[in-house]
Amino acid sequence: MTKRSYAILGTGAIGGLYGARLHAAGFPVRFLLNRDYEQVRDHGLRVDSIWGDLHLRDLDIYQDVAQMPPADVTIVALKTTQNSDLSTLLPPLVGDRGLALVLQNGLGVEDEIARMIGDRVLGGLCFTCSNKVAPGYIHHLDEGKIALGDFRPDGQPSGITDRLDAIATDLETAGIPIDRQADLILARWKKLMWNIPFNGLSAILNAKTDALVADPAIRTLAIELMQEIRAAAAAADRHIPADFIETMLTTTDAMRPYLTSMKLDLDHDRPLEVEAIFGNPIRAAQASGVAMPQTLTLYRQLKFLADRRSP
Amino acid sequence: MTKRSYAILGTGAIGGLYGARLHAAGFPVRFLLNRDYEQVRDHGLRVDSIWGDLHLRDLDIYQDVAQMPPADVTIVALKTTQNSDLSTLLPPLVGDRGLALVLQNGLGVEDEIARMIGDRVLGGLCFTCSNKVAPGYIHHLDEGKIALGDFRPDGQPSGITDRLDAIATDLETAGIPIDRQADLILARWKKLMWNIPFNGLSAILNAKTDALVADPAIRTLAIELMQEIRAAAAAADRHIPADFIETMLTTTDAMRPYLTSMKLDLDHDRPLEVEAIFGNPIRAAQASGVAMPQTLTLYRQLKFLADRRSP
Repeated sequence: MTKRSYAILGTGAIGGLYGARLHAAGFPVRFLLNRDYEQVRDHGLRVDSIWGDLHLRDLDIYQDVAQMPPADVTIVALKTTQNSDLSTLLPPLVGDRGLALVLQNGLGVEDEIARMIGDRVLGGLCFTCSNKVAPGYIHHLDEGKIALGDFRPDGQPSGITDRLDAIATDLETAGIPIDRQADLILARWKKLMWNIPFNGLSAILNAKTDALVADPAIRTLAIELMQEIRAAAAAADRHIPADFIETMLTTTDAMRPYLTSMKLDLDHDRPLEVEAIFGNPIRAAQASGVAMPQTLTLYRQLKFLADRRSP
Repeated sequence: MTKRSYAILGTGAIGGLYGARLHAAGFPVRFLLNRDYEQVRDHGLRVDSIWGDLHLRDLDIYQDVAQMPPADVTIVALKTTQNSDLSTLLPPLVGDRGLALVLQNGLGVEDEIARMIGDRVLGGLCFTCSNKVAPGYIHHLDEGKIALGDFRPDGQPSGITDRLDAIATDLETAGIPIDRQADLILARWKKLMWNIPFNGLSAILNAKTDALVADPAIRTLAIELMQEIRAAAAAADRHIPADFIETMLTTTDAMRPYLTSMKLDLDHDRPLEVEAIFGNPIRAAQASGVAMPQTLTLYRQLKFLADRRSP
């Protein structure tokens, strides 16, 4: 049986790590690269990983997504801030039968992709500590699991579909731990319970997670932000248990001090994923008549910081 | 007729400026100094001011408030963060017939002083751009008006009382512009309409007022913070016209770029007046059943920043 082909849009900390594992497992993988193209062409892609180091030469790499042939599965691992570029480029790549797997942060990212290519969209949430440390060089430091779910445009849970199971099996073959999710949207809301308080406050207050969670005022604020998110999720018929808030706090207590991805983006003058992580949940809640005033405060502060940094 | 005697607690940007003017106008003024005592004893107090420069030697200065004789009017110009020290020191200074004039930021500061000395308390809001630039050396750059009001422990407006008018007249004699306020608490809520958004966000986002007010997201946030304050004031029976919000914004548009006092305090590792400016209004609103969720978010962020800076 022919193995499914994969296209990787965005060969960074996420796309590079998972694309390299799929390639190493024998799947045909085509990589889109941008600034790192020459480096990878001349010196290959290096991935130092807790799963074993890889140094891959002769990869099938592209500088222009329009040059890439259609793939069975296109993994969208660009930042959400680049999604507007995809509306013309993604449809030919997905073609008539391909699927898109969106490995992005936040809420509503599958809806955005589905508006470009119809409902052939799945989503994944990466619980992965991975950084691009130099061009063509990725450090995968910890974790790595993907919570993988199928997508339905009507917002209902999809259950574990055949296409979800097939892609999950490919990724597991490549050594990637997968959690099959019957309800992708619930998984996204749950991930927001951590990302909204800790990514947001880490960037705004220039602080690591340990300092935030140990401060009584910020711990209380984090609880109230999570209560807002939980209420917004409930309005979307996604019910998160109340004790999940305490679980998020104690998980954060036990983490080593951590600069979040949003804080790192801010420090490196990269665009912040403010709309996917904050704007979309706030608007979804608003559409259901639920206000998120404290989340809204962070959202506006982050928009200010994002605007100030951009040229 | 003997002139009223004044004691100045806190000879900084505010106490130093107004105390110097009263002294120059011939009032007996006693100054409490802390770290600047030797400097002022040996070299006098310098006040460079838009009202004319003063260099005052042979002032009546003290290092210990317990050594100061009772005064007719004690001007409390310490930061609110030092108020806990006053409960034993202020009563002997005010004596049986003296008054305290509280030139401090925020809400509830007169109540705090009244718990120490009874209802012989007046309050003033300084609209003054003044900084201590070196020990014993104050720069008064702009403005300078004091909105002066009497205090009633029952929270009702006091009207223009005789004692208010007497002190206002003294200050005017010293060349200080005074706005007599029939309702001190209303004046305090109105000043919070600017201080909460602009002091708070300037410190949290490390930004000057011009950048804040020009950013669409922050301008909207400032409007919503002011709406919360306006609602909280209304719950305390203080009614601020709706168009006061727009007035605050256009006033800020017209100001030159300005680092707020709270931002300067943060930068210089000084205590932040978080409770007087944020905590007290939030608690007053809460007691009336009014929530201030966006103000609360700023309050918690500022407590984190204040705690992190303090030793």
